[in-house]
Amino acid sequence: MARSDIPDIVIGRLPIYLRALVRLQAEEREITSSHELGERLGISSAQIRKDLSHFGEFGKQGTGYAVDTLASELQRILNVDREWQIALVGVGDLGRAIAHYGGFTQRGFRITQLFDGDPAKVGKRVGKLKIRDMAEMADVLREENIRVAMIATPADHAQDVADELVAAGVRAILNYAPIIISVRKGVRVEYIDPGIHLQRMAYYLDD
Amino acid sequence: MARSDIPDIVIGRLPIYLRALVRLQAEEREITSSHELGERLGISSAQIRKDLSHFGEFGKQGTGYAVDTLASELQRILNVDREWQIALVGVGDLGRAIAHYGGFTQRGFRITQLFDGDPAKVGKRVGKLKIRDMAEMADVLREENIRVAMIATPADHAQDVADELVAAGVRAILNYAPIIISVRKGVRVEYIDPGIHLQRMAYYLDD
Repeated sequence: MARSDIPDIVIGRLPIYLRALVRLQAEEREITSSHELGERLGISSAQIRKDLSHFGEFGKQGTGYAVDTLASELQRILNVDREWQIALVGVGDLGRAIAHYGGFTQRGFRITQLFDGDPAKVGKRVGKLKIRDMAEMADVLREENIRVAMIATPADHAQDVADELVAAGVRAILNYAPIIISVRKGVRVEYIDPGIHLQRMAYYLDD
Repeated sequence: MARSDIPDIVIGRLPIYLRALVRLQAEEREITSSHELGERLGISSAQIRKDLSHFGEFGKQGTGYAVDTLASELQRILNVDREWQIALVGVGDLGRAIAHYGGFTQRGFRITQLFDGDPAKVGKRVGKLKIRDMAEMADVLREENIRVAMIATPADHAQDVADELVAAGVRAILNYAPIIISVRKGVRVEYIDPGIHLQRMAYYLDD
């Protein structure tokens, strides 16, 4: 099946399967099943089998999935069997926390550029990276061929930043600012939205 | 249908529908359709109609959904037509950013307690809230009947903090620490995991 024919909602679940498989690897498990994954994830085993069937035949009837093999295949399918450079824009409390977050490299990403518009921050270091001026951003993104960015600016700057990122060739934006941003077709935006997660859990609260 | 009979995956989509409806309200739109919502969200209109049908009859054939009414109904279903108190544990860069995040109150939540184990932070203010000592946490949670918490500690403290939260009556935890935490049945955990979002987008990147 062509990549573009597979529903977004199926693609959206693959990283969740991959995270569960990495957890199984940490537990030194070699084999799993759609039932076990389903139990852990609150997704039906039929759904998991159907999702994976878009990409080929990964398990054998009755013997389950080889954890390492399925994890590698999902990494390959998701294009994360390589390392994508990330530009992080906005280095306030949140931006600093993201820059220090240790979880990106084993997922296929590395923050390699920090930008901020505040002259008081430009030139300062966060870990090994120096904060660069927003005015240099477009050139740097083009030179380094950066396709992925994160926005951690205040809400009222996020759209302008997104416009500039897209104009400079960015095709995937993870937006932490609490505002919906508009981008042209062909560019992906995902949101870090704690409200969504809290509301999901509130359904189950009864007092 | 009993609340517990509705699949988790359906509940998980309701906040996404609600967010889209709130956006439509901001655009002063009065009527929408499963087609329009589906287009905006990358979810099929049939899926949206099927999800909503678990909870009753919200739209009329051919006339669509009244945006305000459907938003209110979803807020009621999700238990967010009230305000839940949140305790935030861990007030480093990330915790401070979360404490300053303005998006919780219109979603049904308010951070009312900050806790940290570092004596250098205890007693300091973030906005209107004073950081309290972790040693007081269990008593405060019980006194204030707090059911919802966020963990923004380093990964190696997150499980201990979760254990203490659950023992003190917390039933929903939003975990920002990059580690899977274990809780007993009946307690919900959701994760802020930027890696999941980045991997979803990487699928569509082609160079």
